[in-house]
Amino acid sequence: MRQRNKAWADEFLKENTDLILHHPSQYKGKWHTEVFKNTRPIHVEIGTGKGQFLVNMAEKHPEVNFIGIELAKSVVVTAAQKVLASEQENIYLIQENAHHLPDIFSQGEVDAIFLNFSDPWPKKRHEKRRLTSGTFLNKYSDILKKEGKLMMKTDNPAFFEYSLVRFSQLGMILDEVNMNLNDDSCPDRVMTEYEERFTNQGKAIYYCSVHL
Amino acid sequence: MRQRNKAWADEFLKENTDLILHHPSQYKGKWHTEVFKNTRPIHVEIGTGKGQFLVNMAEKHPEVNFIGIELAKSVVVTAAQKVLASEQENIYLIQENAHHLPDIFSQGEVDAIFLNFSDPWPKKRHEKRRLTSGTFLNKYSDILKKEGKLMMKTDNPAFFEYSLVRFSQLGMILDEVNMNLNDDSCPDRVMTEYEERFTNQGKAIYYCSVHL
Repeated sequence: MRQRNKAWADEFLKENTDLILHHPSQYKGKWHTEVFKNTRPIHVEIGTGKGQFLVNMAEKHPEVNFIGIELAKSVVVTAAQKVLASEQENIYLIQENAHHLPDIFSQGEVDAIFLNFSDPWPKKRHEKRRLTSGTFLNKYSDILKKEGKLMMKTDNPAFFEYSLVRFSQLGMILDEVNMNLNDDSCPDRVMTEYEERFTNQGKAIYYCSVHL
Repeated sequence: MRQRNKAWADEFLKENTDLILHHPSQYKGKWHTEVFKNTRPIHVEIGTGKGQFLVNMAEKHPEVNFIGIELAKSVVVTAAQKVLASEQENIYLIQENAHHLPDIFSQGEVDAIFLNFSDPWPKKRHEKRRLTSGTFLNKYSDILKKEGKLMMKTDNPAFFEYSLVRFSQLGMILDEVNMNLNDDSCPDRVMTEYEERFTNQGKAIYYCSVHL
């Protein structure tokens, strides 16, 4: 994702700590009690980008608590602006690296994880950076509840093939595979910014859902 | 597959019982000792059709014992003619329904199974006929050795998606997924008759490999 330098981003982050939570590890094991103050399931999008998916999901599913994690400061502020505009109360954002997930959530605290159009890191030597490499999958397993779900969308077939194999080899069970996600095969579909663009270009979108 | 009525097929089957084995259940647990008379691994193609894949694999891999199973009498005789023409000694054929696999092979007797362009049976009510339905996968598990492999090729994306999920849910582990099998991604590729035709038409070929 192209990241524009936003001079006001630091200021914005400071002013919106009730939405983009600082030091999220302080809430480990306490997301229900201290942050959301309800017992609804927690769904986490890793690499939430500009936030369209997260906000639209939150609007569609008020019965779910959503957390978006995004490392890029200049992008997370755009997501935050979308959340503010939507006036949805069931969303929080974290500007953090996915490597720190087990510091942020306790075992079983998360009900579902979304990976949408993550960077495929196509070069073999960058495999470890892929968000479906074994290192990351083990972190997701650490925070997901038993039978917790992980859902992935990508336009990159090689990354999709790689991910299916990694899921299986790390002991996750495939519940759904869709090599051409569209409105017919998925009537409840909520699209990311990338997904809209790729779909308009006629590109295939690959989707799968696995559980622990 | 279109099946032409071959009046001579019955006669041919009778005359070639040293290749198309009658009553194959008599060899259960004895394929190595009584049929192949060696200790090489046994690879079984289920739905062997006209036999091109089986014969070419057998030529390429003399270190492997091959068995082709095909229900259609009019087709298995064509496969048999190919085997005879090839003069390969490491192939046998069985004219039998795949449901009977556990009557034909003992537990762990088979090292690898190939499913090539099996009928996708696209209608939901025909799911049980698909060669990757749970019923069949359990039968494959019964005869495959521990860590035994199952390799599948198809041109049908819905059947491929279905199969990946079934493999995973029946406890098989994905080792490879390839959504566009070609000579670059698979230099050692041996093609079936269908595969050649579909490849020439520019259709995608889907491949996966799983193990128990």
